[in-house]
Amino acid sequence: MEPAELAERVLARDRPAIAAALNTIEDQRPAARARAAALLDLLEGRGEDALRVGITGAPGAGKSTLIDALVRCFRERDQSVGIIAVDPSSQRSGGAILGDRVRLRANASDSQVFVRSMAARSHLGGLAEPTRAGVIVLAAAFDVVFVETVGVGQSEAEIVNLVDTLIFVAQPGAGDTIQFIKAGILEIPDIFAINKADLGPLAERTRHELFASLGLAEPGDDGWKKPAILTAARDGRGVPEVAEAIAQHRRHLESKDLLGERRRRGREAGVVAALSERYGSFGIDRLGGEEALRRRIAEGPDVRTFGDLLAELALEIETALTSSS
Amino acid sequence: MEPAELAERVLARDRPAIAAALNTIEDQRPAARARAAALLDLLEGRGEDALRVGITGAPGAGKSTLIDALVRCFRERDQSVGIIAVDPSSQRSGGAILGDRVRLRANASDSQVFVRSMAARSHLGGLAEPTRAGVIVLAAAFDVVFVETVGVGQSEAEIVNLVDTLIFVAQPGAGDTIQFIKAGILEIPDIFAINKADLGPLAERTRHELFASLGLAEPGDDGWKKPAILTAARDGRGVPEVAEAIAQHRRHLESKDLLGERRRRGREAGVVAALSERYGSFGIDRLGGEEALRRRIAEGPDVRTFGDLLAELALEIETALTSSS
Repeated sequence: MEPAELAERVLARDRPAIAAALNTIEDQRPAARARAAALLDLLEGRGEDALRVGITGAPGAGKSTLIDALVRCFRERDQSVGIIAVDPSSQRSGGAILGDRVRLRANASDSQVFVRSMAARSHLGGLAEPTRAGVIVLAAAFDVVFVETVGVGQSEAEIVNLVDTLIFVAQPGAGDTIQFIKAGILEIPDIFAINKADLGPLAERTRHELFASLGLAEPGDDGWKKPAILTAARDGRGVPEVAEAIAQHRRHLESKDLLGERRRRGREAGVVAALSERYGSFGIDRLGGEEALRRRIAEGPDVRTFGDLLAELALEIETALTSSS
Repeated sequence: MEPAELAERVLARDRPAIAAALNTIEDQRPAARARAAALLDLLEGRGEDALRVGITGAPGAGKSTLIDALVRCFRERDQSVGIIAVDPSSQRSGGAILGDRVRLRANASDSQVFVRSMAARSHLGGLAEPTRAGVIVLAAAFDVVFVETVGVGQSEAEIVNLVDTLIFVAQPGAGDTIQFIKAGILEIPDIFAINKADLGPLAERTRHELFASLGLAEPGDDGWKKPAILTAARDGRGVPEVAEAIAQHRRHLESKDLLGERRRRGREAGVVAALSERYGSFGIDRLGGEEALRRRIAEGPDVRTFGDLLAELALEIETALTSSS
C-alpha cells in the first residue's frame, strides 16, 4: 500500500492499516525505510490532540495492571486507546515477544484499544527510534497513547522525550525509592502513582517519602504541582484520579503554552539521539558538538518534520565527514 | 603522576592512587584520555585472577544489602573487594551522586574494601565506557570486583560483557519475574539469589518459578547448572552459598577453558560498543557492518590490548570515512 493510502487508513483507525504502518516503521530494509519516512511525514502533524502518556516504574510495581485500569477508565469516557509496550527482549532475540505483556483482561475484544509490543532495539542500549515513530502513528489514530517501559533507571530520561505526561508507578516499601530520589530520576515524572495501596501504612509511608523528599506540596518551576496518588489497580481505587491528573496535566501544559515547547524539546532530543546512533560522537563533532547541534535545532524554524530535519542534518554530517581529510 | 607510577601504586593497592586512576579514566579531556589509555594498557593484563561479578535486579530487591553481606563473607576469607556502583543519575547531572548507594555498614573503615560510584554516562543510554575501564583498574588491585547496576532490563545484556559471573537478585512475589523469563533477560545470569527469604512461601514460590521456567534442574549448553539460592541478606542466610557459587562458577569456567573465551567475547562487545558510540552505524558500515566487525575481532590475534584494538579500528574507520566521497 502506498504511504498516502496507508496514512489515510491509519487516520480512519483501520486496525490492519495501523498494524501495517507499525510493521513498516520497524522494518530496517532501505525500501521500507523510505516508505516509513514518507508515512511519518504525513502523520506527524495529525495526532496533536492525542494524550501521550509514558509509564515507568520498577518491574512488579504494577505498571501493566495500572494501564489496564486506566484503559477501562478512558473507554468509559468513550476515548480510544493505543498502547506501545517497550520490549527489552530485542537485544537478544531481535524480535518482540512480549505481545501479551499488557494483558488488558477486560479489553481484549475492544476494537478501540490497540496494543503493540515494540523492540528496544538499539544495541547501544538506547530507546529504539521506531518507538518514537510508533507514538506518531498511534497518536494519529487514537485519543490516548500509552508508552509502557520495562525497567527503571534510564527509562525515565528517554521516555520523557516521547510523551507529554510521564507517570512513575512507585512500589510501596521498595527500599530504593529514596535512592531513586537521590539520583534525580524522580524529578522527571509529572505524576506519581503509589500502587498496591491495599498495603496500607507501607503505601502511605512511600507517598509521604515522595512528598517530603521531592517537595510535592509546592508547584515546580513550571507551575505544575505533581500529584502523588494512592492506587489499587486491582479494585480500581485511585485510578479515576490518575486519569483526571493526566487530563489536568494536559490542560496545565496548554494553559501555560508549554505543550509545544515540551514537544519541541522532545523532538530535539530525538534528532540528537538518532544522529548519535547513526554517526556517533565523531559525526556530531563535525557539526560543532552536541551543544551546538541542540542550539541549532532549537533556533531553527519549527515547521519542518522530524524526518526533514533529520535528513538535512544527516546530509550535512556526511558531507563534512567525507570532505574533512 | 605518570601512568607507569600510577599503575604500580594501583597494583600495590594504594587507595589514593586507585581513586586517582578512576578519576583519570572518567576524565573526558583529551590529555586525560591519553593518560587513561596508557594506564589501562599497563593494567589490562594484571587482574586476571580477580573474580569479576556483576549484580543486577530490580530496585528494592536488595542488591546493596546482598553485596554488603557478600563483602563480609569474602573479607572473612581475607579477600579484598572493590565495588563499582553504576549510577543512573549521570544523564541529568553529569555527575555521580550515589556514593553512598553501597552502604557497606560493616566495612566502612576497612582498607581492603573500596567503593566507587561511576556514571552511566552514555547519552544513548548505554553503559558508559569508563565502567569497563573501572573494572580493569579494580581487578588489578583487588581479589573480587563487584559491579552493581541500578535498574533492570537492559542492564543484564550490557553488564555481562564486563564480568565473569552475573548474579540476578530476584524479588519474591514480584509479578514480573515471569515476564522477565519470557523476555529472555533471565537466560543471561549465571546465579540467581532469591532475596528476602524471610518472606517464606513467597520466596520459595519464586524460586520454584525460576527453576521450572528456566529449566535450572539441568545444566546449560556450557555444562553449568545455574543455582537459585534463597538468601536473607539481613541475617546472612544463604550468603555463604552465593559466595561459594561465585567461586564454583569461576572454577567451572576455568576447568572447561571457558574463562578466556568469555572475556574475549566481552572485549569484542566492548570494542563494538565503543566504536558505535564514536562512529555510529554509518562508521561501522565502513568496516562492512557489525557482523563483519565482530568476526574480524574474533579472528584477530588475541594479544592486543583493548586500547590497541580500539585505536587500530578507529583509525581505519576514520580513514574510510574521509576517503569515501
